[in-house]
Formats: sequence, C-alpha cells, structure tokens
Amino acid sequence: MTERTAAETAPTPDGTRYELDRDTTCVARPDAPGVLDTTLSADWAFGMGVNGGYLLALAARALGTSLAQPDPFTITAHYPTASRPGPAEVRTEVLRAGRTLATGTARIVQDGETRVHVTGTYGDLDALDPEVRTSARPPEFPSLAECAANGALPAAFRRNAFMHRSEQLLDPATVRWAVGEPSGRGEIRAWWRLADGRDPDPLALLLAVDSLAPTAFDLGMRGWVPTVELTVHVRARPVPGWLRVSLRTRNAAGGFLEEDGEVWDAAGRLVAQSRQLARAPRQRQA
Amino acid sequence: MTERTAAETAPTPDGTRYELDRDTTCVARPDAPGVLDTTLSADWAFGMGVNGGYLLALAARALGTSLAQPDPFTITAHYPTASRPGPAEVRTEVLRAGRTLATGTARIVQDGETRVHVTGTYGDLDALDPEVRTSARPPEFPSLAECAANGALPAAFRRNAFMHRSEQLLDPATVRWAVGEPSGRGEIRAWWRLADGRDPDPLALLLAVDSLAPTAFDLGMRGWVPTVELTVHVRARPVPGWLRVSLRTRNAAGGFLEEDGEVWDAAGRLVAQSRQLARAPRQRQA
Repeated sequence: MTERTAAETAPTPDGTRYELDRDTTCVARPDAPGVLDTTLSADWAFGMGVNGGYLLALAARALGTSLAQPDPFTITAHYPTASRPGPAEVRTEVLRAGRTLATGTARIVQDGETRVHVTGTYGDLDALDPEVRTSARPPEFPSLAECAANGALPAAFRRNAFMHRSEQLLDPATVRWAVGEPSGRGEIRAWWRLADGRDPDPLALLLAVDSLAPTAFDLGMRGWVPTVELTVHVRARPVPGWLRVSLRTRNAAGGFLEEDGEVWDAAGRLVAQSRQLARAPRQRQA
Repeated sequence: MTERTAAETAPTPDGTRYELDRDTTCVARPDAPGVLDTTLSADWAFGMGVNGGYLLALAARALGTSLAQPDPFTITAHYPTASRPGPAEVRTEVLRAGRTLATGTARIVQDGETRVHVTGTYGDLDALDPEVRTSARPPEFPSLAECAANGALPAAFRRNAFMHRSEQLLDPATVRWAVGEPSGRGEIRAWWRLADGRDPDPLALLLAVDSLAPTAFDLGMRGWVPTVELTVHVRARPVPGWLRVSLRTRNAAGGFLEEDGEVWDAAGRLVAQSRQLARAPRQRQA
C-alpha cells in the first residue's frame, strides 16, 4: 500500500516511526513475486499469541502492495492457528485487478504453516460518491472525561504488551465485569486511539475492531476467546481524533459467539463495521 | 461434503433429486487432487449472472469434500466477476485440518478466471455444546397466511429462473417499494423455503441469505445491486419447515451498502447470521 497520509509518513516527534507503521513493514522478496518478509512484533502480543487485528492490518498492508487499489473495502481473516512473535512470510496473490475494485489474498506463514489467511477487495475511499444515507446512530456513551475517570481496564490487562499500543477509555457501564458484575448484555464500548499519537486510517480501523476486551466478559464468561474469523468493512477514511468503538454479542450459543463491531470517527461518521466469530471461553464465571 | 440427512439423500416424490443437491454436484477430477468439475445451472440465474448464494452453496459443498469437518461454521465469498451458467471448475485447498475445526479455500473458475473466491472454517454442528444464550429476538412480522395473501413479489421478479427455486412470502410492510412506496427503512423480511420441498440444511442457509429482494429497494433505490463480498455464520442445523429471513441495511454511503441478515428456523432458533457488502444501484428512484 502506498503510504498516503502525513500521519503515515511523518516521523513521530522523537524522530522514530509510528508503532503500527514500523511493525507492519513488509519487504518484498526480489526473487519471489508476491512474497514478502516481515517480523511479527512482540509488542502486539496478547497472552500466548499475537493480536488478530494487528495480524489483519499487517496482511492488509502487504496485500495492498500487490493491488492497484489502495484501501481495503472488505477484508476477511481466518486464523487457523495462533501466530507467534518472530519472522514470518506473507504470500500474496492477485485474483482480479478491476477498474475500481481489486481482489486478492494474503497469507501469513510461519514454520511452513498458514497462520492467517486473508481475502480482501480493495478500492479507493477517496474516489467514493460523497452521498451518506446512514440510518445507524452513533453509540451513546459517556464523555471522554467520564470514561477516563471511571472506565480504566483492570490492571491484569496491562501485563499484555498489546494493551500499551492503544489508549482505550471504556464506557463504565461496560466494564463492571472487571469487578465481578457483568451486565449480561454482551456489550463493550470505548473511546480508542493509538497510544503514540498516530492518526487513524484504514489499517488502524482493522486493528481497532479487535482491540477491546471480549464482549464475552460482559456476558459473565472468562478466559481465552480465540477469533475464528474476522471480517471488516472499511466504509470511509476516518478523520484525525478519537474513535468510538462499540462491540456487541447477541448470539452466544453452542460454544461460539459473534462479536459485531462499529467504529465511528471524530466527525460522527460510521467508518467501519465488523463481525467476528469466536470460540466462547470454556471457563464460566460463577 | 457427506450427504447427512434424509432430506439430502432421499429422492423427491417424483423420483428425481432435489434441485439444490442436483445443481451443486461437483465431480472430483481423478488426476488433479482438489479440483472438481461442475456446471453452474441456468436454473439459478438472475439477470445476467448467477445468484451469489447459489454459488456460495456450490463452493461450500465442494470445499466440504476436501475437509474432515462437515459443516461451514463461517464462510466468506468474494465475487470478483460475474459467473455465467455453464461448465466451471472448483479448485479447493486445505489450509488446516484441526481436531474440531478445519479451514480451506475454494474458487470457482470459468475461462481461467476466478469468478468466486471462498474461504471457510468448518466444524460439526452436531458436536456443539447444547447451551444457547442468544439474546436476539426473532423478527416480528405477520403470519404465513397474512404474508401469503399480501406479500407476493412483483411479477417482474418471476421472470428470473432463480425466483422459482424458492417460495418467499414477504412481510407486506417490506414490499411497498414494489408499488413505488419504499419504507426508507432498508428492511426486507420473508418466510422462505425451497420450492421443491427440500428441508433446510446449512447449504440452504447459505442460499437463503442471498435470496430476497435487495434491501436497497426498500431505501428507494432501483437497479442492479452486485454483491462484493458475503459472509455467513452457520450457528445451528435448522429443523424442517419454513425459515424466517430478515435483512437490514443501516449504512448506505459512498455508493456501497451492507446487508445484514438473520435466519431463524421453525423452532425459533437463530441458525445463521450474514453480512454482505454490495454496490448501491446507480439508478435512483425519483
């Protein structure tokens, strides 16, 4: 993907690169068309694996280098096995390069195994019809100040490197599970931005939808909630500023659950919609 | 995919096979592992192309023959170009065969071009935890008799072969666009079943979510609404009987729209959830 915005190309105030750009860098292998080398950074590790939103953003950026269109309009990742921090190969394939849309696949491979398989259809967000007829309303939750005062994540979360890559200020109503009082509604909402001040862009949206605590916790479940599949529709380029991320589960059944996400930007635009299928945790809260 | 239910293996009363089973038959090519030959049937044509739900069901069945698990739990199709009735090749690839989940891809190829690219993670619906904690409620709409009396599709639709493969009785409140009075809510709901009496199963669910009139019509748009990408989560095996299919669009913007679907079975279980990204029609209703 060509680096398009000042936020992406400018160095941070201390002269380094922004974390998300640094850690999604892929280098094309000159002797193997479509194959790129990368390193999955331990800075995005959560528990024993690497965050699925980060992996999706990395694969999306690699796929973007192969396609004539810059932005993922709809992108789906399947996660057959957990990825580990360290070297990885990204293999991309172009399925079609159309006039306004291009489709391709990217797989993240470690030890010869596909750890993540991504299919995306890309276009140019800046070329879209300006008409917006969205009937969805932004999630209503307390102000940034109120969430900052009362919506902090439990300290246990901060032990994961991944949690230091973003700031997330939760709606206090959706973080009561942290004190043993899940609401039972299956909702998690937060103000969200990258911790190092990088402005949001489509890659950041792919990350944001998989960055909050699992909605399963608000249903009274505890434990690991591995993502089976994650699909994101990027519908507009977000303006700089905080994002509002809203996640909801309505169908926890059979040991699986869906997590539906919406991301609204600082201008009040619905910029991304997501859905993932995840395994419900095996351990239930008493 | 092994044929598992009486509905799939039994002949119809007149001794032929059910249409969906007949027209998703793929024959493995003995000299090319993972490659199957098939024919896209003109009976599932709509307009100039072939229905996307039918293509997804066909690819899902082909992929199932390669995987050790029988049922698509989450499956995504991208449609880079329109498919045509006639011979096609399905190329499958196994990405991982796990103990409870298996992941693979299938592509429908015509004239050397990938027309549909599918990625699916499969499992065994019959092996799932029986616990159901779904908080979603079934869509409320009028009885079968009321929909049958007042929810018929406009005659123009019946000119497409595809419309004869299923019976759909629409909620009268969501078919006013047919008389020039779209509700503006972007909703289409219908009682739905296969026309030849075949019981629903996971393949039929993949079809059902892409079988109704586009929600765009209820937003006052008219014209072709091509699917860019369609993802379906199959969450339970449906019981025999009518399905209730509910589709909704909340984010029509930039020349694209999402279509969120739910399918409820005759026992009141939420058996499938879907979302597609589609191009909005270029022609607007006055």
